[in-house]
Amino acid sequence: MYREQIKVLDCTIRDGGLINNHDFSVDFARAVYKAVSDAGVDYMEIGYKNSKKFFSEKEYGPWKFCDDDIVRQVVDGIEAGAKISVMADVGRVDMDNVKPAAESPVDMIRVASYAKDVDKAILMANQFSEQGYETAINIMAISRDQGIELDEALHQIEEESKVQIVYIVDSFGSLYQESVETLVKRVKKVVKSKEVGFHGHNNQQLAFSNTIEAIIHDANYLDATVYGIGRAAGNCPLELLIGFLKNPKFDLRSILDLISQKFIPLRDKIEWGYIIPYAIAGMMNEHPRAAMALRGSDKKEDYREFYESLINVGLE
Amino acid sequence: MYREQIKVLDCTIRDGGLINNHDFSVDFARAVYKAVSDAGVDYMEIGYKNSKKFFSEKEYGPWKFCDDDIVRQVVDGIEAGAKISVMADVGRVDMDNVKPAAESPVDMIRVASYAKDVDKAILMANQFSEQGYETAINIMAISRDQGIELDEALHQIEEESKVQIVYIVDSFGSLYQESVETLVKRVKKVVKSKEVGFHGHNNQQLAFSNTIEAIIHDANYLDATVYGIGRAAGNCPLELLIGFLKNPKFDLRSILDLISQKFIPLRDKIEWGYIIPYAIAGMMNEHPRAAMALRGSDKKEDYREFYESLINVGLE
Repeated sequence: MYREQIKVLDCTIRDGGLINNHDFSVDFARAVYKAVSDAGVDYMEIGYKNSKKFFSEKEYGPWKFCDDDIVRQVVDGIEAGAKISVMADVGRVDMDNVKPAAESPVDMIRVASYAKDVDKAILMANQFSEQGYETAINIMAISRDQGIELDEALHQIEEESKVQIVYIVDSFGSLYQESVETLVKRVKKVVKSKEVGFHGHNNQQLAFSNTIEAIIHDANYLDATVYGIGRAAGNCPLELLIGFLKNPKFDLRSILDLISQKFIPLRDKIEWGYIIPYAIAGMMNEHPRAAMALRGSDKKEDYREFYESLINVGLE
Repeated sequence: MYREQIKVLDCTIRDGGLINNHDFSVDFARAVYKAVSDAGVDYMEIGYKNSKKFFSEKEYGPWKFCDDDIVRQVVDGIEAGAKISVMADVGRVDMDNVKPAAESPVDMIRVASYAKDVDKAILMANQFSEQGYETAINIMAISRDQGIELDEALHQIEEESKVQIVYIVDSFGSLYQESVETLVKRVKKVVKSKEVGFHGHNNQQLAFSNTIEAIIHDANYLDATVYGIGRAAGNCPLELLIGFLKNPKFDLRSILDLISQKFIPLRDKIEWGYIIPYAIAGMMNEHPRAAMALRGSDKKEDYREFYESLINVGLE
């Protein structure tokens, strides 16, 4: 009934960090790591590998940089734990500062890139591959870049890169299941030597169903976060994905405890989830930036005005 | 791009009434009616047509009974309003007390029935049809009744009933898109002379995507509620469905205002939506009853214990 090739990647600390400037405590990150490992999750993405030349440690917490030492504080002593992933944005990494995989607690580096930046992403990913890391390229905002530039990027990834996985990233939460089907098939048609992954956003409550749709069409690498945490509307809830997958290695219990004990209190302090301005942004295939600004203002519940503002932009 | 035959039915007051014993004020119901009518919604279901012989007016608000007089207070004076629907449960209606459609503000009566009770449902629905109402049979808890009893019920509805629509009702919020596809095709194979409808529940954040899946396979009657209100996890959010449908008659603006002004404050008083015990019940294809009891107890966040309790029931 299940497909052994399926791998689940939890990106709770990485994507959740976009809400709180990556400022989770080591204890919190360790609790998440322990729980997702106990649940049978394959990878945990802990943050970004950004350079301190470009971002200040005063402004951002440790998961903006993911120094090997602090990653070790999260994983050390937890037996049979999930593999550790970090994300690298094109143009924000100090490439000379990434140690070989053999000397690092990090197992995988995923390079996040728009289709147009794929040359840079391939260059970075290939260096990480040569250093011994598992690698992936995550094609961001794919709902916006569906022209021939996407096919060209896919051909380049297939032919020039050493990555194991290409991820479709619905950054704006605007894909429906038919668009997911079309995109997974389009990627698989070109990228024959690599696995396909899917990362959904939950603006329209479609992150989980779109992930199922990706599974149906043979995507094997699936992103999710505990209680759906993540910037703006958040992501595919890990607990729903684990509940859906039939592989006996997965077990929901540790995730349920983690939500009860850590995420219900956290949700009272920071906001994510089904919130109308994010839904509107998703419907309109827009970055959540404007909706996030609205939620930080005294017009946070003025949905109609926000909707009109996006419609008017669209017609200019 | 759109399908003209698609009809949207808002059941905010009817399904939302299951949270508050059908005790919305006339002003609230009228605000919803005005907004959904302005949005281009085709029908608004306002409540149940239950008999006062079986239920007390002291215990339940007006939308448990839907007397014609109080329905008129909601609709009178609103131009080009949505048609009004009420729901009739098998065995709970005083059939002699239902006036002919020509004397009533109600346009449609939907009979809710389990597959096993379809004989009673057809008898009731045919009387309502003869009285001039549009009619439907809603097959409840269809995720549980997928044996040959379902095919038999469908054959009877096709051959013996005068209803215009048969609804697939995912009462437990446990269907995934592949099961929706299978069920819609199964109904359409037998019920060739009637339309197919879909009513989702949102336990696993799948009500909207399952509704889209039903649309893809030619279901034309779609249920939704404002901000997803409804018992337990609630329903397909009307605002997402309106945002998805391409028919130019639909307009989101009045629904956005309604959510800002009425539903954000309401959500602070009564609970519905994505709540882990309802998600667990959905995964396990269980009635939300036990989860609702949990949410009313001091163990409301003890998810793991609740999960274990359902697993153990399953193995007995």
